[in-house]
Amino acid sequence: MRAYDIIKKKRDGGCLNKEEFQFLIKGYLCEEIPDYQVSAFLMASFLRGLNDEEIILLTDVMLRTGQILDLTEMDDPRIDKHSTGGVGDKISIILAPLVAAAGLSVPMICGRGLGYTGGTLDKLESIPGFRTEMRIADFRNILWETGVAMMGQTEDIAPADKKLYALRDVTATVESIPFIASSIMSKKLAEGLNGLVLDVKVGSGSFMKTMEDAEALAATLTNTGNSFGVRTVAVITDMDEPLGRTVGNSLEIKECINALKGRADGDLLEVTLTLGAWMLYLADWVEKAVDNPRTVVPRITAIDEGALSEKRVELEELIGSGKALESFMEFVERQGGNSEIVANPGLLPGAAHIKPVQAGSGGYIQRVDAGKVGTASMLLGAGRQRLEDRIDHGAGIILNRKSGATVQEGDTIAVLHYNDEREPNLAEAFQLVKEAFEVGAEPPEPKRMIKKVVL
Amino acid sequence: MRAYDIIKKKRDGGCLNKEEFQFLIKGYLCEEIPDYQVSAFLMASFLRGLNDEEIILLTDVMLRTGQILDLTEMDDPRIDKHSTGGVGDKISIILAPLVAAAGLSVPMICGRGLGYTGGTLDKLESIPGFRTEMRIADFRNILWETGVAMMGQTEDIAPADKKLYALRDVTATVESIPFIASSIMSKKLAEGLNGLVLDVKVGSGSFMKTMEDAEALAATLTNTGNSFGVRTVAVITDMDEPLGRTVGNSLEIKECINALKGRADGDLLEVTLTLGAWMLYLADWVEKAVDNPRTVVPRITAIDEGALSEKRVELEELIGSGKALESFMEFVERQGGNSEIVANPGLLPGAAHIKPVQAGSGGYIQRVDAGKVGTASMLLGAGRQRLEDRIDHGAGIILNRKSGATVQEGDTIAVLHYNDEREPNLAEAFQLVKEAFEVGAEPPEPKRMIKKVVL
Repeated sequence: MRAYDIIKKKRDGGCLNKEEFQFLIKGYLCEEIPDYQVSAFLMASFLRGLNDEEIILLTDVMLRTGQILDLTEMDDPRIDKHSTGGVGDKISIILAPLVAAAGLSVPMICGRGLGYTGGTLDKLESIPGFRTEMRIADFRNILWETGVAMMGQTEDIAPADKKLYALRDVTATVESIPFIASSIMSKKLAEGLNGLVLDVKVGSGSFMKTMEDAEALAATLTNTGNSFGVRTVAVITDMDEPLGRTVGNSLEIKECINALKGRADGDLLEVTLTLGAWMLYLADWVEKAVDNPRTVVPRITAIDEGALSEKRVELEELIGSGKALESFMEFVERQGGNSEIVANPGLLPGAAHIKPVQAGSGGYIQRVDAGKVGTASMLLGAGRQRLEDRIDHGAGIILNRKSGATVQEGDTIAVLHYNDEREPNLAEAFQLVKEAFEVGAEPPEPKRMIKKVVL
Repeated sequence: MRAYDIIKKKRDGGCLNKEEFQFLIKGYLCEEIPDYQVSAFLMASFLRGLNDEEIILLTDVMLRTGQILDLTEMDDPRIDKHSTGGVGDKISIILAPLVAAAGLSVPMICGRGLGYTGGTLDKLESIPGFRTEMRIADFRNILWETGVAMMGQTEDIAPADKKLYALRDVTATVESIPFIASSIMSKKLAEGLNGLVLDVKVGSGSFMKTMEDAEALAATLTNTGNSFGVRTVAVITDMDEPLGRTVGNSLEIKECINALKGRADGDLLEVTLTLGAWMLYLADWVEKAVDNPRTVVPRITAIDEGALSEKRVELEELIGSGKALESFMEFVERQGGNSEIVANPGLLPGAAHIKPVQAGSGGYIQRVDAGKVGTASMLLGAGRQRLEDRIDHGAGIILNRKSGATVQEGDTIAVLHYNDEREPNLAEAFQLVKEAFEVGAEPPEPKRMIKKVVL
C-alpha cells in the first residue's frame, strides 16, 4: 500500500476502506508518511467529501490511535454533552454539575478555545486553584466521587486527531463536516460513554452559518455516535446572538454561579434545561435497556415529549433546592478550585478598566451579532488568535441588553472589561460591540433558541 | 499576504492573481512556505482547475524564478520542438540536426525520462563521450557554430518548476493540464525562442489517453506560448503504438542514424517531416515579420498548405543529399561525442543477451500497445522507475512487425535486448511484449499518425 495511491483514489472521488485509513493515519502519526502527502489527502477529501461509512472508519482509526476509557465500573449511566462552540457558551459548567446532581456520571474531556472566547477549560481555569491537567486515575476518582470530572485532552486521547487538526488548521481544510465530525467523535468516543448530547450551534457566532450546514453536521454526528453504540442526540441551537449576558472567562463563571443559584437569563436557561433534559432522557433510555448488559441499546426513533418535560422539571427543582449549586461546589473543590468564589465572586480575576458602550439610537434591539461580540472579546484578551496566545481571564464583555429589549439613545447597552489598554485593539473592540447591536423601530420576531432535534 | 488565504481562495474555486502566484511560488522556492501548504494548494488547483489567465501567470512566475536565455544575437530564427513524451519517441535527435541543416537555430533544453524509456538526454548519453551538462556559454557557442545544441535542465532554468514537479510527483497532482502546460512552457520559454512546435502525443503510451485531453492540452500550450510572443503550433500525433522500430536508448540512436541516412520507417518519418515542416514554416513566418524587429509577430490564424508542403520537400532533400547526416555528425562531435558511431554503430553500448518473441497466432497485426512495450522496456532497464535509477543504455526492444503487417504463428515479432537477466523482470517484460501485439483476421484501418494541428 502506498500513500500516493490513497491520495489518488480520493482525488478521483473513490471511497477509502478501513485498511487505507489505517495505513494513512497511523503512518502519519509515526512519521512514516510525510505531512505534504497528508495535506494533499486532506484537500482531496475536503473537495471530494467522505461518505458516512468513511467518516465512521476515519473516526474509528483516530479513536484507536489513543486510549479509550473503560468506565463500566460506574453504576450511573455515563452521559456527556458537547458543543460545537459559540460566543458566551458556558453551558457545560452549569450543566455537568446539574445533571450529576440528578445521578448521572459526566466524564467530560474538553478543549481550549481558539478564536472568540476561551473554551470550557479556559473558563474553569479562571477559578483560583482549579486543575484541568491530571492523570486518568485522578479523573476517574473525581468522577466516581462527584459524578462529574473535567480535564483537557491528554496525549493519550486520539493523538492522531490532534496532529491532523494542526495540519488542517494551516492548509485551509478545517471547515469540512466529515473532518469536524470525525474530530469531535474520536475524542468523545474515548470517554467510554453510554450516551451523548450534542449542541450544534448555528449562526454568526459559530462554524455553521446556515441551518443546512448545521443539520448536515448534526446528522453526521448522531449517525457516527450511534454506529459506535453510543446513543447520540443532536440539538441545533441558536448562535446568532451570544448566549447569556456575559462573554469572557471569569465573567462567565460568575454568570454560571448565578444560573446555578436560579438567576439565569432566558436563553441560557432554555438551552441548558433542554440539553440537560436530553441527558437525563438518554440515561433513562440506556438504563431501561441494560438490565441485560449484553443487549445492544436500541436507537431512539421517537421522542416521549411527556418524559422529556418531566426531566426538565426535575432539573428546575435541583436548581431551586440548591442541590445543583452544591454539586458545582463539590466538583470545584475536588478539582482543586476555591469554592468560596460562590459566596465571594470577587475572588475571581477581574479587570482594571471598564468602558461602557452607549446606544447610538433608540428603538427595539433586533439582534446582537455574536460574531462581532466574539471578535471584540478576543481583541480584549479573552480569547486566543493563535494557540500559543495567553488568555486574560478577567477580560470580557457584559451585555446589558439583548434582542427584543427596548433602548433609548445614550443608554449603556454593554460594558467592556479589560486590563490591556493597548490600541488599536481596544478601539476596534469598542466599535465592534457598538456595531453588534442592531436597533429598529419595530419589535423583532421572538427568537427560538432550539431550532431542531436530530436523533 | 498569507499562504493560507491563497489555498482557501483556490479551494473555494477563486482565481488567483499575479501577486498571489508570486508569493506562493517564490515563498516555496526560498523555503518560507512549507511543502505541506504547497501540496494542499496543488490538490485544490488540481480539482478546481486553473483558467487560461492563471496558467499564463503561473508559467510566467516559474519562468522568472530562473534564467531566460537572450539569443537575439543569433541571425537565424530560433525554433524549438518539444514532445509530451512517448514510447520510442526519438524524433528530436533526427529533427534538430535536420532543421539546423535548413538554417534554423535549435536551442534545445531537454529532460530525462521517468517511466518507459529514457528521455532525449538519456538517449544521447548512449553515444560515447557525449556531454549533456555544460555551461550556458558553451551551449551558446555550440548553437552558434552548428545551429543545434542540447543540454539538460540546469539549476538556473525555472528552478521553481523543478521543485514543484518533485512535490506533484508524490502528491498525485501530476496529471493536470494546467500544471503540465505551465511546467513545459516555463522551461521552453527560457530558451529565448521565436517559435515552438509541440508534439502532443495521444494514446496508450502517453500521458493523454483521449483526443479530448490531448486537444485541451494542445490548446493550453499554444495559448500560453503565443501569449508570451513565441509563435506556437501544436501537432497532435498518435502514441498508441511505439514510434519507429526500436525502444531503448542506444537502439534508438541507431534508428536515428538510419533515418538520417534516408532509411526511416513510415510512421517515424511521417511525424518527423510534419514537425520539421512546421518548424521551417514558423521560421519563415517569424522572418517575414521581423523586418522591423520592434513589430510583434502576428499569430498564425490560417495555414498555407502549399508552403508547408514545400518545407517538407526541402527536408526530404536535406536527408537525400546527406546534409542532414553531416549536421548530426557535427553536432555530436561538438558536444564531445564520437561521430564514428555513424559509420560503426557497434561503438554504441550493446546487450549481452537477446530473446526473440514469437507470434502466438497468425493474421494481421491490429495494434502494438505502446503502454505495454514501454513498461517492458523499463523492466529491461531502458527506463527509470525512480529518478535515482540508473539506465542501461544497451537494453531495449526491436519491433519486427507493426500494425497492418501480416504475421504467421511462430514468426519472430520482436526481440528483447538486455544485460540484466534477473527475474521476474525479464519474464514480465517478455509477457508484456507478447501481449502488446494484437492479431486479428482482417487488416486494420490504416493508422493516421497526424491527428490534428492546433494553432
